[in-house]
Amino acid sequence: MIKLTLPDGSKKEFKKGITGLEVAKSIGQRLAQDAIAIKINNEVVGLNEAIENDAKIKILTFNDPEGVYAFRHSTCHILADAIKNLYPKSKNTIGPPVDEGFYYDFDELQITPEDFSKIEAEMKKIVQANPEFKRQEVDLAEAKKLFKDNNYKIEMAEEFAKQNKKLTVVKHGDFIDLCGNPHITSTGLIKAFKLTKLAGAYWRGDAKNKQLTRIYGISFPSEKQLKDHLTLLEEAEKRDHRKLGKDLDLFMFHEWSPGSPFFLPKGTIIYNELLTLIRSEYKKRGYQEVITPQLFNKALWEQSGHWQHYQENMFLLKVDDEEFSLKPMNCPSHVLIYKSKVRSYRDLPLRIADFCYLHRNELKGVLGGLTRSRKFAQDDAHIFCTEKQIQEEISGLLDFLKHLYVDVFDLPFIAKLSTKPEKAMGDDDLWIKAEESLQQALDVNKIKYVIKPGEGAFYGPKIDFDVKDSLGRDWQLATIQLDFQMPLRFDATYEGEDNKKHHCVMIHRALLGSLERFIGLMTEHYSGKFPLWLSPVQVRLLTVADRFDDYANKVACRLREQEVRVEVDTRSESIGKKVRDAQVEKVSLMVTVGEKEQSNSTLAVRTLDGKVYFGISIDQFIEKVCDCIKNKKKEILF
Amino acid sequence: MIKLTLPDGSKKEFKKGITGLEVAKSIGQRLAQDAIAIKINNEVVGLNEAIENDAKIKILTFNDPEGVYAFRHSTCHILADAIKNLYPKSKNTIGPPVDEGFYYDFDELQITPEDFSKIEAEMKKIVQANPEFKRQEVDLAEAKKLFKDNNYKIEMAEEFAKQNKKLTVVKHGDFIDLCGNPHITSTGLIKAFKLTKLAGAYWRGDAKNKQLTRIYGISFPSEKQLKDHLTLLEEAEKRDHRKLGKDLDLFMFHEWSPGSPFFLPKGTIIYNELLTLIRSEYKKRGYQEVITPQLFNKALWEQSGHWQHYQENMFLLKVDDEEFSLKPMNCPSHVLIYKSKVRSYRDLPLRIADFCYLHRNELKGVLGGLTRSRKFAQDDAHIFCTEKQIQEEISGLLDFLKHLYVDVFDLPFIAKLSTKPEKAMGDDDLWIKAEESLQQALDVNKIKYVIKPGEGAFYGPKIDFDVKDSLGRDWQLATIQLDFQMPLRFDATYEGEDNKKHHCVMIHRALLGSLERFIGLMTEHYSGKFPLWLSPVQVRLLTVADRFDDYANKVACRLREQEVRVEVDTRSESIGKKVRDAQVEKVSLMVTVGEKEQSNSTLAVRTLDGKVYFGISIDQFIEKVCDCIKNKKKEILF
Repeated sequence: MIKLTLPDGSKKEFKKGITGLEVAKSIGQRLAQDAIAIKINNEVVGLNEAIENDAKIKILTFNDPEGVYAFRHSTCHILADAIKNLYPKSKNTIGPPVDEGFYYDFDELQITPEDFSKIEAEMKKIVQANPEFKRQEVDLAEAKKLFKDNNYKIEMAEEFAKQNKKLTVVKHGDFIDLCGNPHITSTGLIKAFKLTKLAGAYWRGDAKNKQLTRIYGISFPSEKQLKDHLTLLEEAEKRDHRKLGKDLDLFMFHEWSPGSPFFLPKGTIIYNELLTLIRSEYKKRGYQEVITPQLFNKALWEQSGHWQHYQENMFLLKVDDEEFSLKPMNCPSHVLIYKSKVRSYRDLPLRIADFCYLHRNELKGVLGGLTRSRKFAQDDAHIFCTEKQIQEEISGLLDFLKHLYVDVFDLPFIAKLSTKPEKAMGDDDLWIKAEESLQQALDVNKIKYVIKPGEGAFYGPKIDFDVKDSLGRDWQLATIQLDFQMPLRFDATYEGEDNKKHHCVMIHRALLGSLERFIGLMTEHYSGKFPLWLSPVQVRLLTVADRFDDYANKVACRLREQEVRVEVDTRSESIGKKVRDAQVEKVSLMVTVGEKEQSNSTLAVRTLDGKVYFGISIDQFIEKVCDCIKNKKKEILF
Repeated sequence: MIKLTLPDGSKKEFKKGITGLEVAKSIGQRLAQDAIAIKINNEVVGLNEAIENDAKIKILTFNDPEGVYAFRHSTCHILADAIKNLYPKSKNTIGPPVDEGFYYDFDELQITPEDFSKIEAEMKKIVQANPEFKRQEVDLAEAKKLFKDNNYKIEMAEEFAKQNKKLTVVKHGDFIDLCGNPHITSTGLIKAFKLTKLAGAYWRGDAKNKQLTRIYGISFPSEKQLKDHLTLLEEAEKRDHRKLGKDLDLFMFHEWSPGSPFFLPKGTIIYNELLTLIRSEYKKRGYQEVITPQLFNKALWEQSGHWQHYQENMFLLKVDDEEFSLKPMNCPSHVLIYKSKVRSYRDLPLRIADFCYLHRNELKGVLGGLTRSRKFAQDDAHIFCTEKQIQEEISGLLDFLKHLYVDVFDLPFIAKLSTKPEKAMGDDDLWIKAEESLQQALDVNKIKYVIKPGEGAFYGPKIDFDVKDSLGRDWQLATIQLDFQMPLRFDATYEGEDNKKHHCVMIHRALLGSLERFIGLMTEHYSGKFPLWLSPVQVRLLTVADRFDDYANKVACRLREQEVRVEVDTRSESIGKKVRDAQVEKVSLMVTVGEKEQSNSTLAVRTLDGKVYFGISIDQFIEKVCDCIKNKKKEILF
């Protein structure tokens, strides 16, 4: 008999050689149905493998990231098998799962997307035959024989052998691939898949090597999941902020400044509204804003360590014949401000906020609209405090964060607490106390979190936050990082109550993160229909005929007095056309003005989600609009 | 007889050979007393020179810039004479008047400021002897003989001769100098002078040449003027924004970012208040704000012409292996925005505003606090309009400017209209119409201006504005420039009512100019005592004892609700000390809170200029403070 430990810690005895599928069945019929693989200790294998020893096990379904990984990786093998059958001269190289599905790179393969249906049909045959995935260890000689026609596989096999890595091959049916990655039980589990695009790629990502053909695809355990996914992709494409940004005149890009957005007037309104929001919170929460330089001598970066560890991401230039860089982050300049005076414990915590522009030299190829840009600003701040103040500061930050994500943006989030890594700076005691402070602060603020053991930065533990947008996609936005090291590097101290010098603790934190990226995400999250307070055009008055222009202009005037962003459409177009244009431009409130409205001094109001209200008095309208803006309400109701 | 035309256009007959002094006496006794030189046609000479032909003349006093120039230049000769007497081995090189007085560079002269009194005494002797300044033409041979011991003078004489320039020498007493510049009548007019500092300088400003000794000085027609000037300098030194900026925690500099200011929390408050002021005007005046990139490919600068004409002022760097620059100005990026859409005459005027940071590679040696920095932002905007719209746009700009300088900052200003230069772009007709538009706009807005003929940019006429600060110093701040050329270089067009394409006109304008520089000037103008709306700490409540802390905090709370920047000083210090500290920190309103105030629910208010008000009710105080802030009043009165 062997003893297996289940994920909940319970232990069960089974006969030696039992398979994963039998274990799953013993736990429950439903689990056995959904099961696609099993994790034995730290290895993911098919449910058909025999378990010979005591082990920790976990039955994996498609709900486990590791299950998805094994599932998609197995799909790669089916794709490679199908390509081999259809294009015998082609050579398969490598094919991993990626965030958006999986890909496989092939040499000697000339195809177009028109060939996808033929390839998918061939894959279907392999799925229907339902052979099991079987692993087997081989030695280098065997591997060389097995892959004698594929120089890529031989190159990899030789490399693994040189590193004394185990060589394994995975077989399904007649197809065999050099592969150490986890697999599911059999091809039949892959009930739904689709090839999505073709791209060029270089062997080992090096442009000096031969160009290969990369086929991207996606796969799921059921047709429904695939269909839902494709619908989501379609919706995401419609909401792509690059498209919406152009359609709605929010921002633009130009080839002469790759990666640096131009915010057009409407986009700048959103940008400035976010700044106003954050600044108003800063006032309440005791932050002090500063404006700092953008060009710094390399001496600063050497002291901070960025020169040694971050140089490739920095834009370098010569100033006065010395090496300078455009700053990629604000922290070192804030330390210079901290150090410009003698600080006492009475001055702490000192919360220094900065919206200065940062530049990071992202590769041109990975730039992507606002979500990955070279120039951006963050709602960045650094808190200088004593060790004792850590918990209270973190707690204040979590309250700030909840206010933004829950009250203002309605974005559900989860926290990830990353703890001391193997190579860490600072003494153990401080780490333990700091991690406890973070946990207590999370608990006090009733924030759910997962712990990522050992994933903290070497200079301190951190909490990252993932938000889920309206399409259910996860985005990492906020980050709160403790830093015990930078105060040491810069000798940033304060005079304690004991009249002695102590190094302060630094907290790096950004809650919205890059404002550029945040605007990109919010454009997609709201699909361009921004809430009233953020909306570039909050109200547009649409006149039915030009004899109502005066009335409309008077109402507009009163709204402008209250700082409402209002426009008047007095074109000689039909009211239907005016409404449609306003809808296309995602104007928040469309207010029709005609005979009835003018004679009764009322307004007819239409919202972007199609609600219509007639006979609203001017005063009532202004009051509701101002209240909705001031309190950042999600919806306006009359 | 000869006919002389006076500055008012009137003509008078005089006998041939009359001197300037006699002409001055014939005009008025007072003028003759103040006269220091005469301008005959375009030449400034002493009043002792005979006038032989018909001419336009102007009697110059110390109120004329040309008079000051001749006066200070003549002082240079007296200095050189005195140095020759005291240090016979020294060689005088060149010595011009400059903004802050004059200087003269000497070779073979080792002195310290301790020697100044001896030199001044020697100069006094020359002044008292009162020899006349006499000009005389010489040929190269004579010059070489006269200056045989001075290789610098010979080098200059040879150079003038090579350029076929007239060689003149000026003599007073026994001293003779090679000099073509204007002079006053005699040394006796220079009643007051002072040597101010010593510096090193290179012959012809080239560090490869020998280093010379530069003596700076200042001179006036009366002791009183000199004394007033020295008092002003002393006051200016006290107000030096670099000193005040440090004392008041407004901004700082660091050697690792030369020329780029750090605005500390209090300075950032002022910075942001200026942005808020300008943005609120933009809303009323139909401007649209944008945010633009900072890094641009040289292709942009080649098209705009900056690459060819402005490159030495730009910070260059490599991006993606191509030449890029940090932008020194916004105009070309605004043209890219203009060109991102097809524009119709209905879209014009388009007023695009931008507060993005600019970088200009000023030489390290000339950097000076905020007034000359490498990184700055302007209240910059570009107006794209049709030719017909020029006058209305300029008129709107002048109204905007008057609002800022007259209503808000109380800074008197004068306008300078610079017209078509010899080398100009665009046809004559357009220039004439444009210049007329500018003049009409100035007239309509009742703005006094002087015309600077031929001093416009080659791309269009412009209006510059000089303001006078509270110390009477002139600063050029605002500028409004028409540009006919950039729209051509970028082919920036609009579709006219005639359905044809036309090039638009661009107006470059900045009203405060560089915000950094403006803050520097305002710090000096207000001597750190900023008006309430700009003041970093608007109110500080000072408690007489800690039993009044609650009351003070309650009042502070109510002020904060109204967004007033308020602090509470609850330290256990005497009230006298608290008041003194607040005065040193230039807190606008110091509010004392003690027994009487608490029991009567009142406040005792003290202003920075020493006014004290007792028994002010809380409501009255808050109302007055808010009114003063909202309406940007210069003074608060209870």
